[in-house]
Amino acid sequence: MTVTRDAIAAAAARIAPYVRRTPLLEVPSGELGQGFAMVLKLELLQHAGSFKPRGAFNRILTAGALPAAGVIAASGGNHGAAVAYAARALGLVAEIFVPQHTPATKIARIESFGARLVRGGETYVEALAASRMRQAQTGAMEVHAFDHQAVLEGQGTVAKEFLEDAPGLTHLLVATGGGGLIGGMAAWAGGRVQVVSVEPTGCPGLHDALAAGAPVAAPVGGVAADALGARQVGALMFPIARAFVGQAVLVQDDDIRAAQQLLWDRFRLVAEPGGATALSAILSGAFVPPPGSRVGVLVCGANTDPATVTG
Amino acid sequence: MTVTRDAIAAAAARIAPYVRRTPLLEVPSGELGQGFAMVLKLELLQHAGSFKPRGAFNRILTAGALPAAGVIAASGGNHGAAVAYAARALGLVAEIFVPQHTPATKIARIESFGARLVRGGETYVEALAASRMRQAQTGAMEVHAFDHQAVLEGQGTVAKEFLEDAPGLTHLLVATGGGGLIGGMAAWAGGRVQVVSVEPTGCPGLHDALAAGAPVAAPVGGVAADALGARQVGALMFPIARAFVGQAVLVQDDDIRAAQQLLWDRFRLVAEPGGATALSAILSGAFVPPPGSRVGVLVCGANTDPATVTG
Repeated sequence: MTVTRDAIAAAAARIAPYVRRTPLLEVPSGELGQGFAMVLKLELLQHAGSFKPRGAFNRILTAGALPAAGVIAASGGNHGAAVAYAARALGLVAEIFVPQHTPATKIARIESFGARLVRGGETYVEALAASRMRQAQTGAMEVHAFDHQAVLEGQGTVAKEFLEDAPGLTHLLVATGGGGLIGGMAAWAGGRVQVVSVEPTGCPGLHDALAAGAPVAAPVGGVAADALGARQVGALMFPIARAFVGQAVLVQDDDIRAAQQLLWDRFRLVAEPGGATALSAILSGAFVPPPGSRVGVLVCGANTDPATVTG
Repeated sequence: MTVTRDAIAAAAARIAPYVRRTPLLEVPSGELGQGFAMVLKLELLQHAGSFKPRGAFNRILTAGALPAAGVIAASGGNHGAAVAYAARALGLVAEIFVPQHTPATKIARIESFGARLVRGGETYVEALAASRMRQAQTGAMEVHAFDHQAVLEGQGTVAKEFLEDAPGLTHLLVATGGGGLIGGMAAWAGGRVQVVSVEPTGCPGLHDALAAGAPVAAPVGGVAADALGARQVGALMFPIARAFVGQAVLVQDDDIRAAQQLLWDRFRLVAEPGGATALSAILSGAFVPPPGSRVGVLVCGANTDPATVTG
């Protein structure tokens, strides 16, 4: 395996000055009608509103000397905001390519951090192609949204914190897009706890890849597409997932919307659809852990208009 | 002093099955431009959206046998939601009296917990008078919003948690309305850390009381009036405040609105005006701690329409 626990631990030390150790919230058995204990990790309170700065900082900080053109990335939005945030913190220029469906709130975040924003293409994959044409001209360093070892190692620090701060977890529920997050987390947690992937039916990249035995192109659609619509999971994460992701469950868009509203109603948290996707697997019954479980659920992003939930 | 640390510790044990131990978020020196470390306690993630269930549960659980008429309370909204929440959890009926200015979001929360809601009067004081007329008819037990020993002891549990979970705090910044929260917290923390009261200029109840040497009627107005507009601080909290609240600073409504927006922009937290009031004292410079301080800031409520902040 290319992503080791030692490398994740080193990433955690490296990025510690730049990222938040996000807090946990215990949800006792029965509180939401569920028959097992849960712990939410509030990674939506991370800088730039999602887990993405972990991988972005680790990638940039391990790259050595950088060109004057700085960094370049393609993103549905959260990774772009994270790269822009990290670049500003480290004194670098950044160019971020986003597809047309990226929400206005994410565009505004990226621009608020001083990055140059370019809209290109219908999907993340097209934005990535556009960013690579530009990269060939400028020589900027690409910060891939998921399929890079340093990015996986950075995202893996979420699992390190989660298992350290919430002893006794039996499961980790994580939303999957391109798979950088769950790949990194499974590299840390695999073999210690059951790692469960949750995807919308509209973006079943890991579900389809595990069924096919290799990363394959999958549909991109639904309410969480801007966060989870990578089309195809990364080559680096796939062997980790095959080894350590026990289940890849699917949820409906309505379940995701209901989880967003419940997070506000019961916890006063505003999550974006991708950020509420893991929890929706519990609430909808798409994933039912055995009795006695203690399930860690990652709430991983909040880059949305708060008005999307009803006060 | 009527409110002892032993009583607060007993309250903490008593209410533990019913309330959340709310998480903390470290804000390193410089992150918001400030020259000292801060720790936010995210009490806005408490059940029913504010700290108020702590006092409500402790009051009800220490009352002995309750009449069939259950409990009755007057409230600007948060206490009413808390009493309604506690009553439902304990199988009691509840009547909640609110003034006309109580926001629709708080009305909806109170009703969502199954309480009977009565609108009465222009201000909290008038709603309180109406609730007492009703109480005389029904015999329900009054759960006062702040001026009751068991309520103070319940709210004091916030300070117990905060000091246990954030070692080394030098200051506690707390928003003040009727003073049940800061009174209970100061009873726990006084003499250990500096307790600082923050009020809007529109609701200067403790500021004016400390200047006058006794609780006095104060104006009620501004953006946080529904949470902090008690008109006069409680008789029980006042001697505690005189002994242990070192400063009572005032902030402008614009500062409170700016703090609300910053909490979303930088932390993805949606707080109501009263919940952002303590932090606004730091951001506005109304309170400037000495170098080397480690300031605990309570973010104490989130019962508002999320659309009040801009995504």
